[in-house]
Amino acid sequence: MERLAPPLERVVVELQKLPGVGRKTAQRLAFHLLRVPPAEVTALAEAIGTLREGIRECSVCFNLADGELCPVCADATRDRSLLCIVEEPANIAALERTSAFRGLYHVLGGVLSPLKDVGPDNLRVRELLERVRKDSFREVVLATSPTVEGEATAVYLARLLKPLGASTTRLAVGLPAGSELEFTDDLTLRRALEARHEY
Amino acid sequence: MERLAPPLERVVVELQKLPGVGRKTAQRLAFHLLRVPPAEVTALAEAIGTLREGIRECSVCFNLADGELCPVCADATRDRSLLCIVEEPANIAALERTSAFRGLYHVLGGVLSPLKDVGPDNLRVRELLERVRKDSFREVVLATSPTVEGEATAVYLARLLKPLGASTTRLAVGLPAGSELEFTDDLTLRRALEARHEY
Repeated sequence: MERLAPPLERVVVELQKLPGVGRKTAQRLAFHLLRVPPAEVTALAEAIGTLREGIRECSVCFNLADGELCPVCADATRDRSLLCIVEEPANIAALERTSAFRGLYHVLGGVLSPLKDVGPDNLRVRELLERVRKDSFREVVLATSPTVEGEATAVYLARLLKPLGASTTRLAVGLPAGSELEFTDDLTLRRALEARHEY
Repeated sequence: MERLAPPLERVVVELQKLPGVGRKTAQRLAFHLLRVPPAEVTALAEAIGTLREGIRECSVCFNLADGELCPVCADATRDRSLLCIVEEPANIAALERTSAFRGLYHVLGGVLSPLKDVGPDNLRVRELLERVRKDSFREVVLATSPTVEGEATAVYLARLLKPLGASTTRLAVGLPAGSELEFTDDLTLRRALEARHEY
Protein backbone atom coordinates (compact mmCIF):
# COMPACT_ATOMS: atom_id res chain seq x y z
CA MET A 1 0.00 0.00 0.00
CA GLU A 2 1.40 3.32 -1.00
CA ARG A 3 0.65 6.54 0.77
CA LEU A 4 1.93 9.87 -0.40
CA ALA A 5 0.82 13.24 0.87
CA PRO A 6 -2.25 14.19 -1.28
CA PRO A 7 -0.66 17.15 -3.16
CA LEU A 8 2.22 14.86 -4.10
CA GLU A 9 -0.07 11.98 -5.01
CA ARG A 10 -2.04 14.35 -7.23
CA VAL A 11 1.08 15.31 -9.19
CA VAL A 12 2.10 11.64 -9.48
CA VAL A 13 -1.35 10.69 -10.79
CA GLU A 14 -1.34 13.49 -13.37
CA LEU A 15 2.23 12.83 -14.49
CA GLN A 16 1.39 9.15 -14.95
CA LYS A 17 -1.08 10.09 -17.66
CA LEU A 18 1.82 11.23 -19.86
CA PRO A 19 3.01 8.73 -22.47
CA GLY A 20 5.91 6.60 -21.27
CA VAL A 21 5.60 7.74 -17.66
CA GLY A 22 4.86 4.98 -15.15
CA ARG A 23 4.27 5.27 -11.43
CA LYS A 24 7.95 5.05 -10.58
CA THR A 25 9.03 7.71 -13.07
CA ALA A 26 6.14 9.92 -11.98
CA GLN A 27 7.28 9.65 -8.36
CA ARG A 28 10.86 10.41 -9.32
CA LEU A 29 9.73 13.52 -11.22
CA ALA A 30 7.43 14.62 -8.38
CA PHE A 31 10.17 14.32 -5.76
CA HIS A 32 12.47 16.18 -8.12
CA LEU A 33 9.94 19.02 -8.27
CA LEU A 34 10.03 19.20 -4.47
CA ARG A 35 13.79 19.64 -4.49
CA VAL A 36 14.28 22.30 -7.19
CA PRO A 37 13.76 26.04 -6.60
CA PRO A 38 10.02 26.85 -6.38
CA ALA A 39 10.36 29.32 -9.28
CA GLU A 40 11.26 26.44 -11.59
CA VAL A 41 8.14 24.51 -10.56
CA THR A 42 5.98 27.59 -11.08
CA ALA A 43 7.51 28.12 -14.52
CA LEU A 44 6.67 24.54 -15.50
CA ALA A 45 3.12 24.79 -14.16
CA GLU A 46 2.56 28.08 -15.98
CA ALA A 47 4.04 26.88 -19.25
CA ILE A 48 1.76 23.83 -19.19
CA GLY A 49 -1.25 25.81 -17.97
CA THR A 50 -1.02 28.43 -20.70
CA LEU A 51 -0.04 26.03 -23.48
CA ARG A 52 -3.48 25.47 -24.92
CA GLU A 53 -4.76 29.00 -24.75
CA GLY A 54 -1.58 30.34 -26.38
CA ILE A 55 -1.62 27.93 -29.31
CA ARG A 56 -3.60 28.31 -32.54
CA GLU A 57 -3.29 27.12 -36.10
CA CYS A 58 -1.19 28.93 -38.67
CA SER A 59 -3.63 30.43 -41.18
CA VAL A 60 -1.41 29.37 -44.08
CA CYS A 61 -0.01 25.92 -43.27
CA PHE A 62 -1.97 24.76 -40.17
CA ASN A 63 1.23 24.29 -38.17
CA LEU A 64 1.02 25.30 -34.50
CA ALA A 65 1.37 29.03 -34.08
CA ASP A 66 0.99 31.66 -31.40
CA GLY A 67 -0.19 34.30 -33.83
CA GLU A 68 -1.55 34.54 -37.37
CA LEU A 69 1.50 32.77 -38.81
CA CYS A 70 3.64 29.91 -37.49
CA PRO A 71 7.38 30.47 -36.99
CA VAL A 72 8.17 28.79 -40.32
CA CYS A 73 5.70 30.78 -42.42
CA ALA A 74 6.77 33.98 -40.68
CA ASP A 75 10.44 33.35 -41.43
CA ALA A 76 11.48 35.46 -44.44
CA THR A 77 14.56 33.32 -45.05
CA ARG A 78 12.64 30.14 -45.93
CA ASP A 79 12.55 28.90 -49.52
CA ARG A 80 9.00 29.67 -50.65
CA SER A 81 9.26 27.53 -53.77
CA LEU A 82 9.44 24.30 -51.74
CA LEU A 83 6.47 22.73 -49.97
CA CYS A 84 6.51 19.74 -47.64
CA ILE A 85 3.21 17.98 -46.85
CA VAL A 86 3.05 16.35 -43.38
CA GLU A 87 0.39 14.61 -41.34
CA GLU A 88 0.77 16.44 -38.02
CA PRO A 89 2.56 19.50 -36.54
CA ALA A 90 4.78 17.10 -34.57
CA ASN A 91 6.18 15.90 -37.92
CA ILE A 92 7.32 19.45 -38.67
CA ALA A 93 9.25 19.52 -35.40
CA ALA A 94 10.94 16.25 -36.39
CA LEU A 95 11.83 17.49 -39.88
CA GLU A 96 13.10 20.81 -38.51
CA ARG A 97 15.46 18.92 -36.18
CA THR A 98 17.24 17.58 -39.27
CA SER A 99 17.94 21.11 -40.61
CA ALA A 100 17.74 19.46 -44.06
CA PHE A 101 14.62 21.24 -45.28
CA ARG A 102 14.40 25.01 -45.74
CA GLY A 103 11.01 25.27 -47.47
CA LEU A 104 7.45 25.66 -46.20
CA TYR A 105 5.03 23.08 -44.82
CA HIS A 106 1.42 22.06 -45.11
CA VAL A 107 -0.24 20.11 -42.30
CA LEU A 108 -2.92 17.69 -43.50
CA GLY A 109 -4.25 16.96 -40.04
CA GLY A 110 -4.05 13.19 -40.48
CA VAL A 111 -4.09 10.58 -43.24
CA LEU A 112 -6.79 9.04 -45.37
CA SER A 113 -8.29 6.12 -43.48
CA PRO A 114 -11.46 4.41 -44.70
CA LEU A 115 -11.48 2.32 -41.50
CA LYS A 116 -11.53 5.41 -39.29
CA ASP A 117 -13.88 7.17 -41.69
CA VAL A 118 -11.31 9.83 -42.60
CA GLY A 119 -11.76 11.02 -46.18
CA PRO A 120 -10.21 13.93 -48.14
CA ASP A 121 -12.86 16.27 -46.72
CA ASN A 122 -11.60 15.61 -43.19
CA LEU A 123 -8.07 16.64 -44.13
CA ARG A 124 -6.75 20.00 -45.39
CA VAL A 125 -6.67 18.75 -49.00
CA ARG A 126 -8.81 21.54 -50.44
CA GLU A 127 -6.61 24.13 -48.71
CA LEU A 128 -3.52 22.36 -50.06
CA LEU A 129 -4.75 22.41 -53.65
CA GLU A 130 -5.73 26.08 -53.37
CA ARG A 131 -2.28 26.88 -52.03
CA VAL A 132 -0.45 24.94 -54.73
CA ARG A 133 -2.61 26.56 -57.43
CA LYS A 134 -2.01 30.07 -56.06
CA ASP A 135 1.68 29.92 -55.11
CA SER A 136 4.11 28.49 -57.59
CA PHE A 137 6.06 25.72 -55.86
CA ARG A 138 8.82 24.13 -57.87
CA GLU A 139 8.65 21.02 -55.70
CA VAL A 140 6.10 19.46 -53.39
CA VAL A 141 7.49 16.82 -51.00
CA LEU A 142 5.03 14.17 -49.81
CA ALA A 143 6.22 13.49 -46.26
CA THR A 144 3.41 11.34 -44.89
CA SER A 145 4.61 8.28 -42.97
CA PRO A 146 5.60 5.12 -44.86
CA THR A 147 2.61 3.28 -43.35
CA VAL A 148 -0.20 1.77 -45.37
CA GLU A 149 -2.41 4.80 -44.78
CA GLY A 150 0.44 7.27 -45.24
CA GLU A 151 1.36 5.67 -48.57
CA ALA A 152 -2.24 5.68 -49.75
CA THR A 153 -2.55 9.35 -48.83
CA ALA A 154 0.67 10.13 -50.73
CA VAL A 155 -0.57 8.30 -53.83
CA TYR A 156 -3.90 10.12 -53.64
CA LEU A 157 -2.28 13.55 -53.26
CA ALA A 158 0.28 12.89 -55.99
CA ARG A 159 -2.55 12.25 -58.46
CA LEU A 160 -4.17 15.58 -57.56
CA LEU A 161 -0.91 17.54 -57.47
CA LYS A 162 0.79 16.36 -60.65
CA PRO A 163 -1.66 18.13 -63.03
CA LEU A 164 -0.93 21.38 -61.19
CA GLY A 165 2.61 21.44 -62.54
CA ALA A 166 4.92 21.23 -59.53
CA SER A 167 7.38 18.36 -59.29
CA THR A 168 6.04 15.90 -56.71
CA THR A 169 8.54 13.93 -54.60
CA ARG A 170 8.31 11.42 -51.77
CA LEU A 171 10.60 10.74 -48.78
CA ALA A 172 12.90 7.75 -49.38
CA VAL A 173 12.19 4.47 -47.62
CA GLY A 174 15.20 2.31 -46.73
CA LEU A 175 17.40 1.05 -43.94
CA PRO A 176 17.48 3.40 -40.92
CA ALA A 177 20.95 4.98 -40.58
CA GLY A 178 23.10 3.04 -38.13
CA SER A 179 20.78 0.02 -38.13
CA GLU A 180 21.85 -3.60 -38.40
CA LEU A 181 20.74 -5.36 -41.56
CA GLU A 182 20.15 -8.50 -39.50
CA PHE A 183 17.48 -6.85 -37.37
CA THR A 184 15.73 -4.88 -40.10
CA ASP A 185 12.14 -5.93 -40.79
CA ASP A 186 11.45 -7.69 -44.08
CA LEU A 187 9.39 -4.95 -45.69
CA THR A 188 11.99 -2.26 -45.01
CA LEU A 189 14.76 -4.50 -46.32
CA ARG A 190 12.74 -5.32 -49.42
CA ARG A 191 12.07 -1.66 -50.13
CA ALA A 192 15.71 -0.77 -49.51
CA LEU A 193 16.64 -3.44 -52.04
CA GLU A 194 14.11 -2.22 -54.60
CA ALA A 195 15.36 1.35 -54.15
CA ARG A 196 19.04 0.43 -54.52
CA HIS A 197 21.11 2.91 -56.50
CA GLU A 198 24.45 3.32 -58.28
CA TYR A 199 27.23 3.77 -55.75
CA MET B 1 17.32 25.14 -36.66
CA GLU B 2 14.20 24.30 -34.75
CA ARG B 3 11.24 26.58 -34.48
CA LEU B 4 8.24 25.80 -32.37
CA ALA B 5 5.45 28.20 -31.52
CA PRO B 6 6.61 30.06 -28.35
CA PRO B 7 4.02 28.61 -25.92
CA LEU B 8 5.04 25.14 -27.09
CA GLU B 9 8.74 25.94 -26.96
CA ARG B 10 8.27 27.19 -23.38
CA VAL B 11 6.72 23.88 -22.29
CA VAL B 12 9.49 21.95 -24.04
CA VAL B 13 12.18 24.05 -22.33
CA GLU B 14 10.60 23.57 -18.89
CA LEU B 15 9.98 19.84 -19.37
CA GLN B 16 13.61 19.40 -20.43
CA LYS B 17 14.71 20.50 -16.97
CA LEU B 18 13.19 17.32 -15.52
CA PRO B 19 15.61 14.46 -14.85
CA GLY B 20 15.82 12.00 -17.73
CA VAL B 21 13.87 14.21 -20.12
CA GLY B 22 15.75 15.32 -23.25
CA ARG B 23 14.60 17.58 -26.04
CA LYS B 24 12.96 14.77 -27.98
CA THR B 25 11.01 13.40 -25.01
CA ALA B 26 10.01 16.93 -24.01
CA GLN B 27 8.63 17.54 -27.51
CA ARG B 28 6.75 14.25 -27.46
CA LEU B 29 5.19 15.15 -24.11
CA ALA B 30 4.34 18.69 -25.25
CA PHE B 31 2.64 17.47 -28.44
CA HIS B 32 0.80 14.92 -26.32
CA LEU B 33 -0.49 17.74 -24.11
CA LEU B 34 -1.85 19.46 -27.21
CA ARG B 35 -3.82 16.36 -28.17
CA VAL B 36 -5.46 15.38 -24.85
CA PRO B 37 -8.60 17.06 -23.45
CA PRO B 38 -7.77 20.55 -22.12
CA ALA B 39 -9.10 19.56 -18.68
CA GLU B 40 -6.32 17.01 -18.36
CA VAL B 41 -3.68 19.62 -19.13
CA THR B 42 -5.21 22.01 -16.62
CA ALA B 43 -5.25 19.28 -13.99
CA LEU B 44 -1.54 18.62 -14.54
CA ALA B 45 -0.66 22.32 -14.44
CA GLU B 46 -2.67 22.82 -11.25
CA ALA B 47 -1.26 19.74 -9.54
CA ILE B 48 2.28 20.93 -10.25
CA GLY B 49 1.50 24.56 -9.43
CA THR B 50 0.01 23.78 -6.04
CA LEU B 51 2.49 21.05 -5.12
CA ARG B 52 4.87 23.19 -3.12
CA GLU B 53 2.33 25.24 -1.23
CA GLY B 54 0.36 22.15 -0.24
CA ILE B 55 3.34 20.21 1.10
CA ARG B 56 4.87 20.53 4.58
CA GLU B 57 6.87 18.33 6.89
CA CYS B 58 5.23 15.82 9.20
CA SER B 59 5.78 17.12 12.73
CA VAL B 60 6.63 13.62 13.96
CA CYS B 61 8.73 11.92 11.28
CA PHE B 62 9.56 14.73 8.77
CA ASN B 63 8.00 12.81 5.90
CA LEU B 64 6.07 14.92 3.38
CA ALA B 65 2.61 15.77 4.65
CA ASP B 66 -0.29 17.99 3.74
CA GLY B 67 -1.27 18.57 7.36
CA GLU B 68 0.21 18.16 10.82
CA LEU B 69 0.87 14.45 10.25
CA CYS B 70 1.98 12.49 7.19
CA PRO B 71 -0.25 9.68 5.84
CA VAL B 72 1.88 7.05 7.59
CA CYS B 73 1.92 8.69 11.04
CA ALA B 74 -1.82 9.42 10.73
CA ASP B 75 -2.60 5.78 9.92
CA ALA B 76 -3.88 4.05 13.07
CA THR B 77 -3.20 0.60 11.63
CA ARG B 78 0.61 1.03 11.49
CA ASP B 79 2.80 -0.87 13.93
CA ARG B 80 4.01 1.83 16.32
CA SER B 81 6.71 -0.37 17.84
CA LEU B 82 8.74 -0.42 14.60
CA LEU B 83 10.78 2.53 13.35
CA CYS B 84 12.58 2.78 10.03
CA ILE B 85 15.21 5.51 9.56
CA VAL B 86 15.60 6.82 6.00
CA GLU B 87 17.56 9.58 4.29
CA GLU B 88 14.80 11.25 2.29
CA PRO B 89 10.97 11.19 1.91
CA ALA B 90 11.46 9.59 -1.53
CA ASN B 91 12.93 6.55 0.27
CA ILE B 92 9.67 6.14 2.19
CA ALA B 93 7.76 6.03 -1.10
CA ALA B 94 10.13 3.29 -2.31
CA LEU B 95 9.79 1.26 0.89
CA GLU B 96 6.00 1.66 0.88
CA ARG B 97 5.88 0.24 -2.64
CA THR B 98 7.21 -3.05 -1.26
CA SER B 99 4.34 -3.36 1.25
CA ALA B 100 6.89 -5.19 3.42
CA PHE B 101 7.10 -2.64 6.23
CA ARG B 102 4.15 -1.70 8.40
CA GLY B 103 5.90 0.45 11.01
CA LEU B 104 6.70 4.17 11.26
CA TYR B 105 9.47 6.20 9.66
CA HIS B 106 11.97 8.88 10.56
CA VAL B 107 13.45 11.07 7.83
CA LEU B 108 17.02 12.19 8.55
CA GLY B 109 17.13 14.73 5.75
CA GLY B 110 20.37 13.39 4.31
CA VAL B 111 23.47 11.51 5.38
CA LEU B 112 26.60 12.44 7.28
CA SER B 113 29.12 13.82 4.82
CA PRO B 114 32.29 15.54 6.00
CA LEU B 115 33.07 16.49 2.39
CA LYS B 116 29.76 18.32 1.99
CA ASP B 117 30.02 19.69 5.52
CA VAL B 118 26.98 17.75 6.73
CA GLY B 119 27.28 16.80 10.40
CA PRO B 120 24.78 15.33 12.88
CA ASP B 121 23.46 18.83 13.62
CA ASN B 122 22.36 19.20 9.99
CA LEU B 123 20.29 16.02 10.16
CA ARG B 124 17.29 15.18 12.36
CA VAL B 125 19.43 13.14 14.76
CA ARG B 126 18.43 15.02 17.91
CA GLU B 127 14.74 14.59 16.99
CA LEU B 128 15.37 10.89 16.33
CA LEU B 129 16.96 10.31 19.71
CA GLU B 130 14.18 12.20 21.49
CA ARG B 131 11.61 10.08 19.67
CA VAL B 132 13.32 6.80 20.46
CA ARG B 133 13.72 7.82 24.11
CA LYS B 134 10.04 8.82 24.41
CA ASP B 135 8.31 6.08 22.41
CA SER B 136 9.27 2.49 23.05
CA PHE B 137 10.25 0.94 19.74
CA ARG B 138 11.05 -2.75 19.83
CA GLU B 139 13.09 -2.41 16.63
CA VAL B 140 14.78 0.42 14.78
CA VAL B 141 15.68 -0.33 11.14
CA LEU B 142 18.60 1.63 9.70
CA ALA B 143 17.57 2.06 6.08
CA THR B 144 20.17 4.53 4.82
CA SER B 145 21.64 3.62 1.42
CA PRO B 146 24.50 1.11 1.21
CA THR B 147 26.84 3.88 0.03
CA VAL B 148 29.97 4.97 1.90
CA GLU B 149 28.14 7.89 3.47
CA GLY B 150 24.98 5.88 4.13
CA GLU B 151 26.98 3.16 5.86
CA ALA B 152 28.88 5.69 7.97
CA THR B 153 25.62 7.30 8.99
CA ALA B 154 24.17 3.90 9.93
CA VAL B 155 27.22 3.06 12.05
CA TYR B 156 27.05 6.45 13.75
CA LEU B 157 23.32 6.13 14.51
CA ALA B 158 23.65 2.52 15.68
CA ARG B 159 26.16 3.65 18.31
CA LEU B 160 23.75 6.29 19.60
CA LEU B 161 20.66 4.05 19.45
CA LYS B 162 21.95 0.85 21.03
CA PRO B 163 22.25 2.29 24.56
CA LEU B 164 18.58 3.35 24.31
CA GLY B 165 17.46 -0.28 24.37
CA ALA B 166 15.71 -0.91 21.02
CA SER B 167 17.01 -3.65 18.77
CA THR B 168 18.87 -1.95 15.91
CA THR B 169 18.83 -3.62 12.48
CA ARG B 170 20.16 -2.77 9.03
CA LEU B 171 18.82 -3.52 5.52
CA ALA B 172 20.55 -6.51 3.93
CA VAL B 173 23.09 -5.95 1.15
CA GLY B 174 23.37 -8.66 -1.51
CA LEU B 175 22.62 -9.57 -5.10
CA PRO B 176 19.65 -7.66 -6.53
CA ALA B 177 16.74 -10.05 -7.16
CA GLY B 178 16.68 -11.25 -10.75
CA SER B 179 20.24 -10.05 -11.43
CA GLU B 180 22.95 -12.01 -13.22
CA LEU B 181 25.91 -12.96 -11.06
CA GLU B 182 28.17 -12.33 -14.06
CA PHE B 183 27.23 -8.65 -14.23
CA THR B 184 27.16 -7.91 -10.50
CA ASP B 185 29.80 -5.44 -9.30
CA ASP B 186 32.62 -6.82 -7.16
CA LEU B 187 31.66 -5.10 -3.93
CA THR B 188 28.07 -6.31 -4.05
CA LEU B 189 29.20 -9.84 -4.85
CA ARG B 190 31.73 -9.77 -2.04
CA ARG B 191 29.11 -8.58 0.44
CA ALA B 192 26.62 -11.17 -0.78
CA LEU B 193 29.27 -13.81 -0.20
CA GLU B 194 30.10 -12.51 3.28
CA ALA B 195 26.40 -12.46 4.17
CA ARG B 196 25.72 -16.00 2.89
CA HIS B 197 23.36 -18.02 5.02
CA GLU B 198 22.14 -21.57 5.64
CA TYR B 199 19.78 -22.65 2.88
